[in-house]
Amino acid sequence: MTAPEPAMPPSDRTRVRRLAERGRYDRATVRAILDEGLICHVGFAHEGRPWVFPTAYARIGEHLYLHGANANFALRSLADGAEACITVTLVDGLVLSRSAFHHSMNYRSVMLFACAEEVRDAEEKRAAVLAIVDHMVPGRTDGTRAPTDAELRKTLVVRVPLDEASAKVRTGPPVEDEEDFALDHWGGVLPLTLTAGEPVPDDEARARFGTAVPAHVTRWSRPLAP
Amino acid sequence: MTAPEPAMPPSDRTRVRRLAERGRYDRATVRAILDEGLICHVGFAHEGRPWVFPTAYARIGEHLYLHGANANFALRSLADGAEACITVTLVDGLVLSRSAFHHSMNYRSVMLFACAEEVRDAEEKRAAVLAIVDHMVPGRTDGTRAPTDAELRKTLVVRVPLDEASAKVRTGPPVEDEEDFALDHWGGVLPLTLTAGEPVPDDEARARFGTAVPAHVTRWSRPLAP
Repeated sequence: MTAPEPAMPPSDRTRVRRLAERGRYDRATVRAILDEGLICHVGFAHEGRPWVFPTAYARIGEHLYLHGANANFALRSLADGAEACITVTLVDGLVLSRSAFHHSMNYRSVMLFACAEEVRDAEEKRAAVLAIVDHMVPGRTDGTRAPTDAELRKTLVVRVPLDEASAKVRTGPPVEDEEDFALDHWGGVLPLTLTAGEPVPDDEARARFGTAVPAHVTRWSRPLAP
Repeated sequence: MTAPEPAMPPSDRTRVRRLAERGRYDRATVRAILDEGLICHVGFAHEGRPWVFPTAYARIGEHLYLHGANANFALRSLADGAEACITVTLVDGLVLSRSAFHHSMNYRSVMLFACAEEVRDAEEKRAAVLAIVDHMVPGRTDGTRAPTDAELRKTLVVRVPLDEASAKVRTGPPVEDEEDFALDHWGGVLPLTLTAGEPVPDDEARARFGTAVPAHVTRWSRPLAP
């Protein structure tokens, strides 16, 4: 047993206002959602106008790492000091109420606010890039060529602290107005999961390995197996 | 046969700059991605600071509709004139290259820029709310109670024109540096789909219907069946 970690006190921005009972401020919940997600949506203002880009990421400790080409507009904006709001959303199910009004989704989301920093240290960049690969497919970096120094120089990596983050979680059946239970309508939840299909080898992998696929690919699942 | 629709000429903002060959500007591609997605990420600046919220939506013709409670911060900001960047992202697969550097994802995304308008007309609000339910689960509104006038008064609906939208699409196997094919690594794609599990009736539905579930629930799939 480890002692429970302290919660992050919500800031004015991370305190969940709408449906406040869905707010979660403990680090374990925030981390678990970040670790399960595949992409984040990065928002920032550039010359006062909003932009929202999807991108891959990985968490190392209390930072999120994003990467892209040196000329990547979103990452360059963040590296140049634009404040970011980064949101990761996992849709767990469709909540089918007897009324149109009470339809909803079950979901887990994290919203975080931060100013990112460009990572200039080659070893930290290398670790971040590898973490992003292993975040997509745990164990994958053992089955790939590591980045060269030239590749790292072509890559922009930014580090985003998780200091100002909160989660919002909805679970469970639909909420109903009591009188709607008398209606002849079905109510419940349709669970949704992101599911892997059959791996598709490229031509060279098919020629070399046939239908054999590495275990780190075949065992892929979200949420991650414990 | 219908004549192909004209493409939307990209604006300075919707022209895909990074990996320009992934840019798609035809309306059919934009619409198909919007119609398949379940949630969008809505970005805007409030007092110069960025916010990104996930929310449900539906497309009707050349507009996206979003809804929430009257007090919803994001929707109220949009209704009050904040410019929005709205992004819908579908992750279709993990692209596993022989090098960490060339790892990627197959995806389809839409990014649109717009100023939203609050929908005040009751019939347009009603149509939007019902469209959002049917967007989640096609056919669902036939199995639910329609919104009352009081519910509509509690609901804020905004309409977002699709005039300034573009899509970005990656498909296919990994890109590799030619010499990496000599490595003893597997390369290919792990396809991902959002999959429905067994519907979970709530207590009342279980008592009334047992294990029977409406066809509009059991046949749910994304992408939508033709």
